[in-house]
Amino acid sequence: MSNDAQLRIEKLRALMRERNVDIYIVPTADYHGSEYVGEYFKCREYITGFTGSAGTALITGNEAYLWTDGRYFIQAESELEGSNVVLMRAGDDNVPTIAEFLDDNLKEGQTVGFDGRVVSANLGKKYSEIAKKHGAGIDCSLDLISEIWDERPDLPENRVWILKEEFSGESTASKIEKVREKMDKEGCDFFVLTSLYDIMWLLNLRGSDIEHVPVALSFVILSQNEIRLYINNDIIDDEAGEYLNENKVTLREYFSFYEDIRQLKNVMLSIADVSYAVYENVRGGCDDNLKNRPNPTELLKAKKNDIEIQNTIKAHIKDGVAVTKFMYWLKNNIGKIEITESDAADHIDNLRGQQEGFLDLSFDTISAYGANAAMMHYTAKRGQDAKLEPKGFLLVDSGAHYLEGTTDITRTFVLGELSEKQKKLYTAVLKGNLNLASAVFLYGCRGVNLDILARKPLWDMDLDYKCGTGHGVGHILNVHEGPNAFRWRVADPANPGAVLEENMITTDEPGVYLEGEFGIRIENELVCKSGEKNEYGQFMHFDTITYAPIDLDAVLPELMTEEERRLLNDYHSMVYEVISPYLTEDERNWLRENTRSV
Amino acid sequence: MSNDAQLRIEKLRALMRERNVDIYIVPTADYHGSEYVGEYFKCREYITGFTGSAGTALITGNEAYLWTDGRYFIQAESELEGSNVVLMRAGDDNVPTIAEFLDDNLKEGQTVGFDGRVVSANLGKKYSEIAKKHGAGIDCSLDLISEIWDERPDLPENRVWILKEEFSGESTASKIEKVREKMDKEGCDFFVLTSLYDIMWLLNLRGSDIEHVPVALSFVILSQNEIRLYINNDIIDDEAGEYLNENKVTLREYFSFYEDIRQLKNVMLSIADVSYAVYENVRGGCDDNLKNRPNPTELLKAKKNDIEIQNTIKAHIKDGVAVTKFMYWLKNNIGKIEITESDAADHIDNLRGQQEGFLDLSFDTISAYGANAAMMHYTAKRGQDAKLEPKGFLLVDSGAHYLEGTTDITRTFVLGELSEKQKKLYTAVLKGNLNLASAVFLYGCRGVNLDILARKPLWDMDLDYKCGTGHGVGHILNVHEGPNAFRWRVADPANPGAVLEENMITTDEPGVYLEGEFGIRIENELVCKSGEKNEYGQFMHFDTITYAPIDLDAVLPELMTEEERRLLNDYHSMVYEVISPYLTEDERNWLRENTRSV
Repeated sequence: MSNDAQLRIEKLRALMRERNVDIYIVPTADYHGSEYVGEYFKCREYITGFTGSAGTALITGNEAYLWTDGRYFIQAESELEGSNVVLMRAGDDNVPTIAEFLDDNLKEGQTVGFDGRVVSANLGKKYSEIAKKHGAGIDCSLDLISEIWDERPDLPENRVWILKEEFSGESTASKIEKVREKMDKEGCDFFVLTSLYDIMWLLNLRGSDIEHVPVALSFVILSQNEIRLYINNDIIDDEAGEYLNENKVTLREYFSFYEDIRQLKNVMLSIADVSYAVYENVRGGCDDNLKNRPNPTELLKAKKNDIEIQNTIKAHIKDGVAVTKFMYWLKNNIGKIEITESDAADHIDNLRGQQEGFLDLSFDTISAYGANAAMMHYTAKRGQDAKLEPKGFLLVDSGAHYLEGTTDITRTFVLGELSEKQKKLYTAVLKGNLNLASAVFLYGCRGVNLDILARKPLWDMDLDYKCGTGHGVGHILNVHEGPNAFRWRVADPANPGAVLEENMITTDEPGVYLEGEFGIRIENELVCKSGEKNEYGQFMHFDTITYAPIDLDAVLPELMTEEERRLLNDYHSMVYEVISPYLTEDERNWLRENTRSV
Repeated sequence: MSNDAQLRIEKLRALMRERNVDIYIVPTADYHGSEYVGEYFKCREYITGFTGSAGTALITGNEAYLWTDGRYFIQAESELEGSNVVLMRAGDDNVPTIAEFLDDNLKEGQTVGFDGRVVSANLGKKYSEIAKKHGAGIDCSLDLISEIWDERPDLPENRVWILKEEFSGESTASKIEKVREKMDKEGCDFFVLTSLYDIMWLLNLRGSDIEHVPVALSFVILSQNEIRLYINNDIIDDEAGEYLNENKVTLREYFSFYEDIRQLKNVMLSIADVSYAVYENVRGGCDDNLKNRPNPTELLKAKKNDIEIQNTIKAHIKDGVAVTKFMYWLKNNIGKIEITESDAADHIDNLRGQQEGFLDLSFDTISAYGANAAMMHYTAKRGQDAKLEPKGFLLVDSGAHYLEGTTDITRTFVLGELSEKQKKLYTAVLKGNLNLASAVFLYGCRGVNLDILARKPLWDMDLDYKCGTGHGVGHILNVHEGPNAFRWRVADPANPGAVLEENMITTDEPGVYLEGEFGIRIENELVCKSGEKNEYGQFMHFDTITYAPIDLDAVLPELMTEEERRLLNDYHSMVYEVISPYLTEDERNWLRENTRSV
């Protein structure tokens, strides 16, 4: 790959010279700000050879750089070897951000080029300000990779399907009504929506244009009279066409969106969620033409309705059965038959596939043995993957989309002998998980208020995990969903994160990752619920909706408080009660033993 | 007072008619946004008769309203009785804010009047926007109270004094230099400072223009060449004059500040910290003339220097000796001699007064027995105060300014028999206090991240205290100081609170307040310190610098974890070690017993 990358970069440089571009930026993004992107949009991978899901390339006349984050340092280093692309370890001391790099290197009269459709509005604005400061310019109309990528994949043409009301829990008409109320309140005539998750939620549609993320490429313009859906018409079959027609949705050609938004006046949109091209086209030279508001769909979508919650619980029971059966198989076969990381992943994937209503995995299963688990986003590749031995930990982070909802669970399994350090840290992670899950708090709290409950047992030992404690979960959408999350760091002081609302679902996944040694993560999903309301306010708490044993072979009960032991035992009682009816007698007996009180 | 208020309001209404003002607003404020105000500024008290430290009056042609917060509902109700002033319980359901009230009631062509010098810039801007929306106007040049208040007190004329460098720890020149660096970085020519705490800190001056807050009324305009201090020249004695001269400070008449700021171009100021009059005078019609930045003095002042920390610890030792002697006296005399709440307050005040370097109390001592302690800001009035009996709790919240620094401590003393509920809740408050004090956390955390550690034992029982857990402490300045604090609620989503920095001092004061029953609060001061730095970042923790026994007679050790008991025992060992050398033998023996391990 590295020689390919070098040739491609040279072709790009030739084009850059032709178009008078001095610095060209290639992010990992589609036109919708999606977290993962389809094959068509993998321009950054094409130009650098780095295959990770996140990263930005920056090419100058002489140099090429790739910024990526801590999850991918090791992988990027290996994939970039021999390519002359310099790895920029984002977040490390003395490594500038791209904006800082531009600020340091841009010279008067130079031009920064990028495709404004795949750069966020906020980043585009920043690049533009820096260019202006240095007397340089930007050209945001350049999709140069397209011109050199001969065999660029086509845009996908997968059919969309309807998520019927018995599964979505709310009609499209009702959802549209709520968004229109918000537009009315803000006094705006149009609402421009480019986030695929939000569009799918709003129209009760699903697609399959991104691997494991059931969305279809599309844009929406909403007014009080019209719902315009910009989409490839070929992927709308008769049923979907009729459904959209009933809902008074007008179909438009996907790419005509960019031209159409130039005509709109008095527009509501979320600057943080649109591309620079959309922002520039809508504002038409002046911000007075737009009202910057969070997409109302974001909060509506995150607060699941009762049908979604009930169904999600059903999905988690199926998922828990698959995980429990996997654990039974793993613990009974380790040391007896040969199992690699990939074998283990295949086995759990197959168990999920056997569940009724299974649609897809919600992401590629992470099956990481020993030191591999210290890499948070490790992917086992068959042939290069580790063979499991009867010692240490196997970390499995996995989930699925079922017709009833989406799951995301991590368990760290004990395959044999452990060190005292491993047990101590496993117990600390477990304590954090239980303490967050059992939080009682006043309505108004955000993730930043609660995160320390999960992290405290580690912080007390000067340890940490370099990521949030948990994320919202999409309902048959992206497994990572905002605005709710558990994080301690206020990355943007203007946005301390969302208030935790009734029926929001958030993961609870503290961990420990010791490079070259091992990795531990225990992840359950929590539904936020209302509790007592009194003179102090509305108290809230969580219900845990993930049902699978937590491996007791690594637990040191003597390091837990009485309360923490009670929480663990209560959780395990619930797991046994919920899962045991779906097991064979052998599995059930095993589960009883493995959900025993400590 | 109530009939007086009625007459005064009628006089005000006559003036309002004369000046064509339909709604007149009288806040509780001076020209500097001070938390407490001097006698000259007590206009709201004059017009309503309500003597609490916080509240805003709003007078229309027919009605008069007083907004105040939960701390003062009971007091305001009693003081407003018979006056026709309607109490608006801020924060209660269905009670509008003043802005909402204006929005609901203002009619086209009407005028809202106020003195723009005592209304914050942010509130003034909001009132102005609401008026505009309704086709109404504002007149912010009206100090109408002055015109009807015949015997309005004079502005104070107390001498300023110099806080010598051995006590301030940093020269004025060095502080000025740091602020000028910030101005330079922001590319601003002038810095306008109106906060008295910040001015006193910057110039190493102190005054006594506000009760218990050693500040002098003044403004500062700083440029790279000049330091202008606007102050009553009569309060500068020869020593201070010479000192200011040496520091190249130019003296100007106090009130000429308002005119002078109209002439400035390219000004840095903190909109959140100035009055509407200052904001309007500086901007001169356009915000382009100012750069809105937090006062750089605020963060510099909050991060105490090493001399300030060392001296503050000395102050806390003296203070701890006074509190310990008080506790010894109280516990040995209760039920034997007659003691009222005021007697108790006088006794502890006297013990503080005997300490070397004592300057003043840092606020009026709160001495609240039984149900009185359920009012967070109760003030005992001699003659109307409760007699202490050998049962229940006495809550004493008190502190002092010493030449070495400022203290703030609360202890809840057991006077005799307690109910199980009282012991249980006292233990819960204690657990919260200890858990926050022992937090280990990564640099970057703010108060919102840690607050739940103090609140958790109460939230777990669906209980709460309706205030923050702690505030920054000024160094011989206002006892409440920003920007650091422990709060869970993000009141303003654009301001999640300050990052906790090395050498910031913050109080840790959870409590329980049950109306009609009792109140409990345990308050220590914490200094933020750096701990281990490793691959995860810079770990931080707190040192507790308040030294006085926590009454063990209310502690139920069986409700504490082993770790919590260890924290309590370690704290008490430290108290004994630090305080015992300053006690009589009887006191020392008593202290040993009362700091025993549980």
